[in-house]
Amino acid sequence: MTSENKSSGATFAQHKPDVETTGTGLKRWLLSKLVHHIGYPPIRIVLWDGTSWVDHAHQTIATVYIKNKTWLTRLILNPDLYFGEAYMAGDIEVEGDLESALQAVYKSRTAHANSTPAEQLTYAWRSWRRNNSMAGSRRNIHRHYDIGNDFYKLWLDREAMQYTCAYYESPEDSLEQAQLNKLEHVCRKLQLKPGQTVVEAGCGWGGLARYMARHYQVHVKAYNISEEQVKFAREKVREESLDHLVEYVLDDYRNINGDFDAFVSVGMLEHVGKENYPALGSIMRRALKPDGLGLIHSIGRNYPAPMNAWIDKRIFPNAYPPSISEIMPIFEPNGLSILDIENLRQHYTQTLRDWLQRYEEHLPEIRKHFDEPFVRAWRLYLAGSAASFAGGYLQLFQIVFTHGENNNLSRTRKHLYMDASDEKGFHGSI
Amino acid sequence: MTSENKSSGATFAQHKPDVETTGTGLKRWLLSKLVHHIGYPPIRIVLWDGTSWVDHAHQTIATVYIKNKTWLTRLILNPDLYFGEAYMAGDIEVEGDLESALQAVYKSRTAHANSTPAEQLTYAWRSWRRNNSMAGSRRNIHRHYDIGNDFYKLWLDREAMQYTCAYYESPEDSLEQAQLNKLEHVCRKLQLKPGQTVVEAGCGWGGLARYMARHYQVHVKAYNISEEQVKFAREKVREESLDHLVEYVLDDYRNINGDFDAFVSVGMLEHVGKENYPALGSIMRRALKPDGLGLIHSIGRNYPAPMNAWIDKRIFPNAYPPSISEIMPIFEPNGLSILDIENLRQHYTQTLRDWLQRYEEHLPEIRKHFDEPFVRAWRLYLAGSAASFAGGYLQLFQIVFTHGENNNLSRTRKHLYMDASDEKGFHGSI
Repeated sequence: MTSENKSSGATFAQHKPDVETTGTGLKRWLLSKLVHHIGYPPIRIVLWDGTSWVDHAHQTIATVYIKNKTWLTRLILNPDLYFGEAYMAGDIEVEGDLESALQAVYKSRTAHANSTPAEQLTYAWRSWRRNNSMAGSRRNIHRHYDIGNDFYKLWLDREAMQYTCAYYESPEDSLEQAQLNKLEHVCRKLQLKPGQTVVEAGCGWGGLARYMARHYQVHVKAYNISEEQVKFAREKVREESLDHLVEYVLDDYRNINGDFDAFVSVGMLEHVGKENYPALGSIMRRALKPDGLGLIHSIGRNYPAPMNAWIDKRIFPNAYPPSISEIMPIFEPNGLSILDIENLRQHYTQTLRDWLQRYEEHLPEIRKHFDEPFVRAWRLYLAGSAASFAGGYLQLFQIVFTHGENNNLSRTRKHLYMDASDEKGFHGSI
Repeated sequence: MTSENKSSGATFAQHKPDVETTGTGLKRWLLSKLVHHIGYPPIRIVLWDGTSWVDHAHQTIATVYIKNKTWLTRLILNPDLYFGEAYMAGDIEVEGDLESALQAVYKSRTAHANSTPAEQLTYAWRSWRRNNSMAGSRRNIHRHYDIGNDFYKLWLDREAMQYTCAYYESPEDSLEQAQLNKLEHVCRKLQLKPGQTVVEAGCGWGGLARYMARHYQVHVKAYNISEEQVKFAREKVREESLDHLVEYVLDDYRNINGDFDAFVSVGMLEHVGKENYPALGSIMRRALKPDGLGLIHSIGRNYPAPMNAWIDKRIFPNAYPPSISEIMPIFEPNGLSILDIENLRQHYTQTLRDWLQRYEEHLPEIRKHFDEPFVRAWRLYLAGSAASFAGGYLQLFQIVFTHGENNNLSRTRKHLYMDASDEKGFHGSI
């Protein structure tokens, strides 16, 4: 972003600070360094001894208490990483709405600040140690997705256990309805017909595969390297008597073979690693019949940027949300043709807010199984992600593609938007 | 494309030629070199003296007569360029459907052949002399668009004189209806509301600007550097009493200034030049209000490739259809967010076939004003372009974008697909 940014960030650039800092000496100086690095946000900051900073030119939207002196210098060196670490440890408390506070800081940092040298070093180091080999991917995925199905059941939707962006056709849609809407939207984009074959790369708890089988009578082969998820998916598909149509394969997407009418991957690309994109595209090309359709649903960005250091360390090791220019090496070297890209960013804001609300409602149960740093880490991750989508720092792209030579294409996208009263209606339940 | 291409190209890779060549000596050897370069297409080739080549393993779909010996070695050096030159001169005749013949050759070349060294040299030279400075752009645009409005009137749609891809909601739509559909589709994507302001970069004969003013009561400032087109547009807007809403500006898009609710550019990006993309994006960012929407409609590709040498020389000097990865430097460095990309490739095939049919119907009038090489050049250009879209070598991207921070976005794309019976109905006439 440049200084002539026209959008809301510009209000910061033109803004004349009216700063009030209490306290003296080193602490006061360190506090002024910190607020400089994070771009003078509309946040009151209070240290352990009452030293405080506030910019009266803004309406203050939250107060951040830094309760322990060990964090101040670290926050200056790498705010993203150490804010998360200190929050987890209970040494930072936020008074006011956590998502709004985070969104305000992201905005002031984007408008004003550059990476600190320590952040750049951290990022370089993380880039170097990235490991999305098959074994590396198994370790990374195990750490996040194998926390325990019971944990995710508490706050994901109860119908399809979707841990990806929902689709709120109406702002009043429940999380359950919005996740079913998402599954239906994906199926419509793939134009599934009974008897077709689908391969799914990264199937989570298997909800999309079961939805496709139940509502579109297609055969689905769904890959996942998370043992907990595959175990759950296999039990569920037997319970629902759909196991003649759906096969869950505990294996890496790189081992996909066969010839399918559709390729689908919802929420896996974030874990693939940029270095593997051309190979992923080559797998898609091999897996797709000449008139097959594919869909990738992934978190992304408007422009290339490093992953938040704390999220990388604590939540999603080695994950990366790519920009569209970074995504294209999947398709372009493999002669695949982009038919449709839809950005569902605002739907992810709402999804994350719904998740966070349920998470907070189930804190008593969560606390029975997890310690306080874990509880705080997940709150921060959900609120911070909502703030990132709301602020436009993260996007959600649904990309439909096919072989470059395929002329068996729908003329318009009208079929995505038919009502339940239309001939081939919308499926309201899983 | 690699040799393991799964799609229809693969039939060539696996194909065992069953070649019959008549004649002897140098001519026979040169002919075999030529068919090697163009990848053994299902085309019979006959030289001036009756020497011929055919591959009986294919069903032959056309016969190409090379009627003059001066072309054979040149065709081997640079088939794209000299096929066009020889066809213009009347020294190549095609028996059979011209578009199908061209499509077959494009396909065999893509599946089999690499650029010849002469082609690579030609391309390097053309890249070097590219000139999309303001003066260079004026010269390039003058050469194509100022041929004369009367010429284009003969074969473009009669309603809106659109020289860009139409949108056939139904395969039975007339060219006129499909062009109006396109204008409406663009307006809906921009979500225009009465009283808003729109800036258009590259407005052709001004049809979109007039449509927007008439049907959406918006104020449009439309830029174009083609004198003939602007003259026509200004007359037309006065005739239609819309001149209080539409201003046509004879100027370069680089001189756009102001603050608009919408930015639109239909069929200009092809002429901008890759080196100017970040600057174009910067102009868009400056021109767009914080919650404004923008749309770019452009010919593109699935992967970067040089422009056809003959089209560059004779039809569109310095034009270039970019791939999506090549397009992204417009948006990403400028913090713009992609909301929607739609590929309308098949609609351009149909548009070009409609144009070609009308062109052929009006040959007697065209011949009154233009010589035979011109007549043949435009036939080849229209048929060759149809073949390129039909074969998947060219795409048509409609890209909707906004500022990265804009949260004033529609939830779904359903508003694009409402019927005439809906509240805010479709506008069936200009």
